[in-house]
Amino acid sequence: MKLTRTLPVVAALAALPTMGLAQDAEVLPISSEVGFIFNTFMFLVAGFLVFWMAAGFAMLEAGLVRSKNVAMQLTKNIALFSLAAIAYYLIGYNLMYPGDGWTIDGILGAFSTASLEPVGMEGATPDLTYSSVGADFFFQLMFCATTASIVSGTLAERIKLWPFLFFVIVLTAFIYPIQASWKWGGGFLAPGIDGVIDFQDFAGSTVVHSVGGWAALAGALILGPRLGKYKEGRTVPFMGSNLPLATLGTFILWLGWFGFNGGSQLYMNTAGQVGDISRIFANTNTAAAGGAVAALILTQLLYKKVDLTMVLNGALAGLVSITAEPLTPSLGAATLIGAVGGVIVVFAVPFLDKLKIDDVVGAIPVHLFAGIWGTIAVVFTNSAANLGVQLYSILVVGVFTFVVSGVIWFILKSTVGIRVTEEEEVMGLDMAELGMEAYPEFTN
Amino acid sequence: MKLTRTLPVVAALAALPTMGLAQDAEVLPISSEVGFIFNTFMFLVAGFLVFWMAAGFAMLEAGLVRSKNVAMQLTKNIALFSLAAIAYYLIGYNLMYPGDGWTIDGILGAFSTASLEPVGMEGATPDLTYSSVGADFFFQLMFCATTASIVSGTLAERIKLWPFLFFVIVLTAFIYPIQASWKWGGGFLAPGIDGVIDFQDFAGSTVVHSVGGWAALAGALILGPRLGKYKEGRTVPFMGSNLPLATLGTFILWLGWFGFNGGSQLYMNTAGQVGDISRIFANTNTAAAGGAVAALILTQLLYKKVDLTMVLNGALAGLVSITAEPLTPSLGAATLIGAVGGVIVVFAVPFLDKLKIDDVVGAIPVHLFAGIWGTIAVVFTNSAANLGVQLYSILVVGVFTFVVSGVIWFILKSTVGIRVTEEEEVMGLDMAELGMEAYPEFTN
Amino acid sequence: MKLTRTLPVVAALAALPTMGLAQDAEVLPISSEVGFIFNTFMFLVAGFLVFWMAAGFAMLEAGLVRSKNVAMQLTKNIALFSLAAIAYYLIGYNLMYPGDGWTIDGILGAFSTASLEPVGMEGATPDLTYSSVGADFFFQLMFCATTASIVSGTLAERIKLWPFLFFVIVLTAFIYPIQASWKWGGGFLAPGIDGVIDFQDFAGSTVVHSVGGWAALAGALILGPRLGKYKEGRTVPFMGSNLPLATLGTFILWLGWFGFNGGSQLYMNTAGQVGDISRIFANTNTAAAGGAVAALILTQLLYKKVDLTMVLNGALAGLVSITAEPLTPSLGAATLIGAVGGVIVVFAVPFLDKLKIDDVVGAIPVHLFAGIWGTIAVVFTNSAANLGVQLYSILVVGVFTFVVSGVIWFILKSTVGIRVTEEEEVMGLDMAELGMEAYPEFTN
Repeated sequence: MKLTRTLPVVAALAALPTMGLAQDAEVLPISSEVGFIFNTFMFLVAGFLVFWMAAGFAMLEAGLVRSKNVAMQLTKNIALFSLAAIAYYLIGYNLMYPGDGWTIDGILGAFSTASLEPVGMEGATPDLTYSSVGADFFFQLMFCATTASIVSGTLAERIKLWPFLFFVIVLTAFIYPIQASWKWGGGFLAPGIDGVIDFQDFAGSTVVHSVGGWAALAGALILGPRLGKYKEGRTVPFMGSNLPLATLGTFILWLGWFGFNGGSQLYMNTAGQVGDISRIFANTNTAAAGGAVAALILTQLLYKKVDLTMVLNGALAGLVSITAEPLTPSLGAATLIGAVGGVIVVFAVPFLDKLKIDDVVGAIPVHLFAGIWGTIAVVFTNSAANLGVQLYSILVVGVFTFVVSGVIWFILKSTVGIRVTEEEEVMGLDMAELGMEAYPEFTN
Repeated sequence: MKLTRTLPVVAALAALPTMGLAQDAEVLPISSEVGFIFNTFMFLVAGFLVFWMAAGFAMLEAGLVRSKNVAMQLTKNIALFSLAAIAYYLIGYNLMYPGDGWTIDGILGAFSTASLEPVGMEGATPDLTYSSVGADFFFQLMFCATTASIVSGTLAERIKLWPFLFFVIVLTAFIYPIQASWKWGGGFLAPGIDGVIDFQDFAGSTVVHSVGGWAALAGALILGPRLGKYKEGRTVPFMGSNLPLATLGTFILWLGWFGFNGGSQLYMNTAGQVGDISRIFANTNTAAAGGAVAALILTQLLYKKVDLTMVLNGALAGLVSITAEPLTPSLGAATLIGAVGGVIVVFAVPFLDKLKIDDVVGAIPVHLFAGIWGTIAVVFTNSAANLGVQLYSILVVGVFTFVVSGVIWFILKSTVGIRVTEEEEVMGLDMAELGMEAYPEFTN
Repeated sequence: MKLTRTLPVVAALAALPTMGLAQDAEVLPISSEVGFIFNTFMFLVAGFLVFWMAAGFAMLEAGLVRSKNVAMQLTKNIALFSLAAIAYYLIGYNLMYPGDGWTIDGILGAFSTASLEPVGMEGATPDLTYSSVGADFFFQLMFCATTASIVSGTLAERIKLWPFLFFVIVLTAFIYPIQASWKWGGGFLAPGIDGVIDFQDFAGSTVVHSVGGWAALAGALILGPRLGKYKEGRTVPFMGSNLPLATLGTFILWLGWFGFNGGSQLYMNTAGQVGDISRIFANTNTAAAGGAVAALILTQLLYKKVDLTMVLNGALAGLVSITAEPLTPSLGAATLIGAVGGVIVVFAVPFLDKLKIDDVVGAIPVHLFAGIWGTIAVVFTNSAANLGVQLYSILVVGVFTFVVSGVIWFILKSTVGIRVTEEEEVMGLDMAELGMEAYPEFTN
């Protein structure tokens, strides 16, 4: 106990004017309640930013599909978010964060609905070292919903509404939360279990983005490509109907990602924590810039013309790439990690087309391929990451998500069917399934 | 006075390292200045979110009108917000929050312009128990402007620009502030006056949303339906010209609502307060999800086709429904309260059409009907609410707003006229009143 | 040392319940670490709001160009932001904030890349009186990018992609940072150097907005007007293709401006600071409203029809006008300052056309003319401002930016060329340079 430090503090207490315009030179301790308010408010701000990503996906996808399928794509996006919110509350949240209540230790969480702390926290002795349950639930829900948003883009323009929404419920109530519990809920990919495996995935290149990507890939394989997309060995380009909308969606996602990565710091109750959040903001931004610039230059070199949709997806791939580790890289490293993500997208989009895997918006290159890259890239800047553990975790999460998703898609296909009829697909899902048009006055 | 608790605090002061990475186990008191910063910053963040709702209304309405009236709808929305800002500064704010300066006690506030605290608060001894005047003004202004945004949607496609803007000034300078003073300014619907009536309306299902709805209803009745809307007993559907825009508007409103309801907690200076704000965020979100899902399922059941605009309005109705009490419900109760809002909208839209009340965007079902429902629903979860008081307050606010609005609309109709000519309405307000088109290259 | 004030503090420490719901009447000192967290988080929130302005410019410009140039305008906007992010990191940031490392004292900063503080700030003794380097970098980068966004609007519809992007790199790596260092980096326009010149430009009416405007003006003069814009002494109106997009862009910019001006307070660690930020939010909002209403009324009076694009630009001009001093004006003064900005725009747009300076979106009136007005208007409300110093600084910054920009544009024109061919301009830049359309299904 260094009592000497106490004295100036007391002096500072005494000498300060009523309005604390002059700061004390000494560092006073931060009360845990102040820290709790900082942590909680940070979660709320980050959470509403990640909520905003749901709008980003909706706009991106509505801009990249043909106009005859736009209203359906919008319907899917608002419906999937709403269903995810309810599924995560009813089942997902406690499956993901079971605390001590695992159904199968480290593998399968708890089955119970989420409940928030009492009003005004009366009657409760809150743990002031973290943040409020309400804020944590709000923030984590948004991550769960993101996973579903990824799937809707890939499968656009031919999947039936209700089977898709059924899959969303399974994904957000079970698939996402179960695998997320392995790392973030303290399961077998977190160090707590055996002290050996310590998977590093800061904000979810694997846990969120690749999971959405795997589920989308399983769906795309079982659903098949759109009519006329692959003809006589050639890929027919289907142009997005509204590129300003797609660009707006990209900017919204970019903005939301500050909350996605920054909020994943989980704490803002010390100078070190908020300094880390600052690094994450700056690195997240520069990785997106790196991805966009890489796609900009590469499409110019490869095709002699810049491709706007590639630039948009390049920025998104940069964001996914930095998500596994937005904290430890320098600005330069973050830019390069993002740029590699942008390069991956430019090559992966035609590669998927060569395999006749029809991914309408490029979600598999952006979220799955760049997600894997980002998860591997952690080893370059974070000494706590082990390449074997990263690969093992990518594999375990991937196999689980791909297999379970595939089974669900297969069951849906075999029972209710997942694909609209040829006539409906040609007519467009808007008129066929919804009986309305997104732009009734614009198209010919 | 338990002096024993002082000792560990002083020990903590002494023992803490320069960077407070480890939190003290003891709870230190939060200084009122730190609390003031928390409260104020919370208001600013919530306030810019509610500001953002102005853009949401603009996009929602621009998406739901026909393309020939889009530029006018945009003009109305940016103009109404701007005029509301000035009217509320000149008259509204002090009419709503008279402090001790009521013109008629508990009924009519003070007539004076708003003024902010001095720069750097020099010369002032600020009351650190709340937040800054600037932040309070900023936050409250956004609520006032919301009321006007509601009206513009209902009356779209046939009302003249300048009479509409005149009504906006009356609404935001007088009607909204006067009735809002009754509850939020400490008037006769607040407990301070007689200790009996304690109307519960947390963030304004009645005070904001139903007021906008009543003013819109009065206008719709006096203005009459659009040409050709009701023909031979049949309602002719006029399709919105741009559903991505309408969906974007809904997402913007959903996002802004976190500020609307969360900020209405007014304080963030304790763990209990920020915990409450967290509950409000989570409940607000789940109520919107409940409303959207209810409309999704119900339109499928009723019409065999999902109706996207109903889903959008369902989400908004869920938000309005939870606004009167976003704090006390559990997540499950909030979901149900929102879902009932969604159900109300699905039935109320055709019901209004049956009455030949032409509400272009569905603002009356969303803001008035769901607003009434939400105000009543408070009694289910908040024991401080009394059904009689809730109904009485709904009635008092409704009668006042409807009658005064009706008188204003009637005077405007009888003098300058409020409706464009038939030729202008057929041509579209964009060319007729503005001489420009919103999409000059798109429509045929 | 007034020990008497210590006693109630200690008493308060002792008497407080575990959950600090009741605030102490005494003001405890704010620890510098808490202040640091407040400052840093405020920067991050303000920073993401200013980031959002990049989306606002993209939407505004995409809405105001003709549909054949929309994809290109979107490409330019996302590319310029990405390149600015990298250029500012590599060169701009330390050129702008050299600290003690000026290359030429007070005139030319330091040449080195930006680096953030270490993770968790271990090994560092951070200066807790300000905010984290990461947050400062993040916030300042967004200002730099804004400058480039201004240029892209003016030069739309005829400039080649890559020369434009080359200029952006020069602007964001050198031109903007060098002149910004003169005031904000402690150079010869800041009081530190000679104690005489103390240029007042709170958030950059001159340092950001007029710089973008000067660079745009130099470019417009050297690039020349669009084909067919000025015919036989007449200005041919080229209508924006998507006014909802332009309106959305305006609302986004308005929202982002709260971060732009509010964040420029730089500190939020005392009641006085956060009170000032509140004033700034309220004044920024009312100035935009004033600008919009002025343009609304003035276009009605001048042309007998309201002009929506003028109202949008009026709001933006109001925002630019208040940017040099958003703190000291009263609400009334701020409204008037903004209103004058709106008036300037209404007259300046046709004035530029008379000079055959073709500014596609009106960026020069909004950012340069209103920027100059706002910088001069500081003298009305801030006694620290001196009219001579304001004019001198406007001139120095203007001459530097205009001349250097002009030289760069001229070199580009003389070497690689900056303008597309006539055929390409007629065809539209989207098909000519990108080989894609923004709305492939909408236009005829």
